[in-house]
Amino acid sequence: MKEQLKSVHNQHVKNWKKLATKKFRRQSQRYLLDGWHLVAEALQNGAKVVQLIGTPDELAQHSDIVSRVEEVYEVTPEIIKHITETVSPQGICAVAEIPATYGMPSQLTGAWLMLDSVQDPGNVGTMVRTADAAGFAGVVVNEKTADLFSPKVVRSMQGSQFHLHLYNGDLKKWLAAFQRMGAPVYGTELNPAAQNCRKVKTPATFALIMGNEGNGMDRDLLALTDHNLYIPMRGRAESLNVAVSAGILMFQLNQSLQQDD
Amino acid sequence: MKEQLKSVHNQHVKNWKKLATKKFRRQSQRYLLDGWHLVAEALQNGAKVVQLIGTPDELAQHSDIVSRVEEVYEVTPEIIKHITETVSPQGICAVAEIPATYGMPSQLTGAWLMLDSVQDPGNVGTMVRTADAAGFAGVVVNEKTADLFSPKVVRSMQGSQFHLHLYNGDLKKWLAAFQRMGAPVYGTELNPAAQNCRKVKTPATFALIMGNEGNGMDRDLLALTDHNLYIPMRGRAESLNVAVSAGILMFQLNQSLQQDD
Repeated sequence: MKEQLKSVHNQHVKNWKKLATKKFRRQSQRYLLDGWHLVAEALQNGAKVVQLIGTPDELAQHSDIVSRVEEVYEVTPEIIKHITETVSPQGICAVAEIPATYGMPSQLTGAWLMLDSVQDPGNVGTMVRTADAAGFAGVVVNEKTADLFSPKVVRSMQGSQFHLHLYNGDLKKWLAAFQRMGAPVYGTELNPAAQNCRKVKTPATFALIMGNEGNGMDRDLLALTDHNLYIPMRGRAESLNVAVSAGILMFQLNQSLQQDD
Repeated sequence: MKEQLKSVHNQHVKNWKKLATKKFRRQSQRYLLDGWHLVAEALQNGAKVVQLIGTPDELAQHSDIVSRVEEVYEVTPEIIKHITETVSPQGICAVAEIPATYGMPSQLTGAWLMLDSVQDPGNVGTMVRTADAAGFAGVVVNEKTADLFSPKVVRSMQGSQFHLHLYNGDLKKWLAAFQRMGAPVYGTELNPAAQNCRKVKTPATFALIMGNEGNGMDRDLLALTDHNLYIPMRGRAESLNVAVSAGILMFQLNQSLQQDD
């Protein structure tokens, strides 16, 4: 089924545009993918692509992908620009179902990243992408972290949402779940008892928490962690960008990366 | 000397505003610092602060700093907003001399980061900040890299420009200078001969090159490197953000960080 749309006032177009708001994403449990790379990754990884939206040229050139989506909309370049807010969009978008849930897997295994009130969407997306590259099993974010499916986070994740598990949740409950099964939870707040991240030997299952850019981790959550880690620094910078810190820690800690390379 | 300014049409204000452009920064060899933290860091590290610009309230509350700058301008909050383009500025700015040069130190020692056409100002600033934290001696950028003293780069550097050496230059000449003294230059392009960064033992003096976000390193420059490094990945992300990669590599390679912690 292919429908042609030419006006930005069409109800479909209005709904796509509204996917830029957290409220509408939550209501609809859908979000927008921008560009062929993400659409192809979604389909390849079995994600549910609900609608495909493209200019006539783009749709004609990718019939293999078009044939895999039931609802296809042929639109003007202006409509694509209107819904993506991108300066020079590729001319293709898709509406996909949000894969993140509010539950918790019945069994927790592997390395997990938890984000406690990380505000910048670029940082959040970059950390999900890095967690994917570091072989982490999943990422859990609390309510005060930038929404995982906002356009900016989606741009920075570069498709990693299709490779690992994403959850929204109460980090204290997650922390308790790890600890109940004997898996350590590492905080990242400098304090006198903090441990050098290079000296820590992690088991295969553990969690690492990164805090807010300016204020660090929540005090109550910090008090519940098993250890706090620091990255030894020689320079005079007072701190690192949170996404850079997370990258160094995730690649340092994930045992599976260290053992057989 | 304290002068009061109330109009955004004043010539001083126009010049401060123009510091947002690369052309005027190059002409004047000056750039803008926004906020007390950066102004204090500049003075503390012996940087040349040419002019201090603040609202009456802010200047009154920091007389210790005010007394250390010769030219002080008392301005309206509107003028500060106009020149900083910040939504909620602190009410204090300063004009400082650009510390980066086009030369080369007579002796190259320590770890150096080279940026080959890195486009995003946030990535460039974050890498300078990370190089500082990793104890690197300096950063060299080529002409196609985002200007080191643009407002966005300055915001991301968070004062690290006062802690290490910054140079603009022809990376091929720098690479040759390292190699003449027997110091290795590491590229970061995946190719069949690339080496696992965890297995590399660097001498105290070396250089690491990071390339463009989309296109990687320049082919000619790449051909001249001694080794290319890769970060072993377990996940399915195809790549890492360039600032995250640089962070992992810099903390991995800088020997001084590894030996005595």
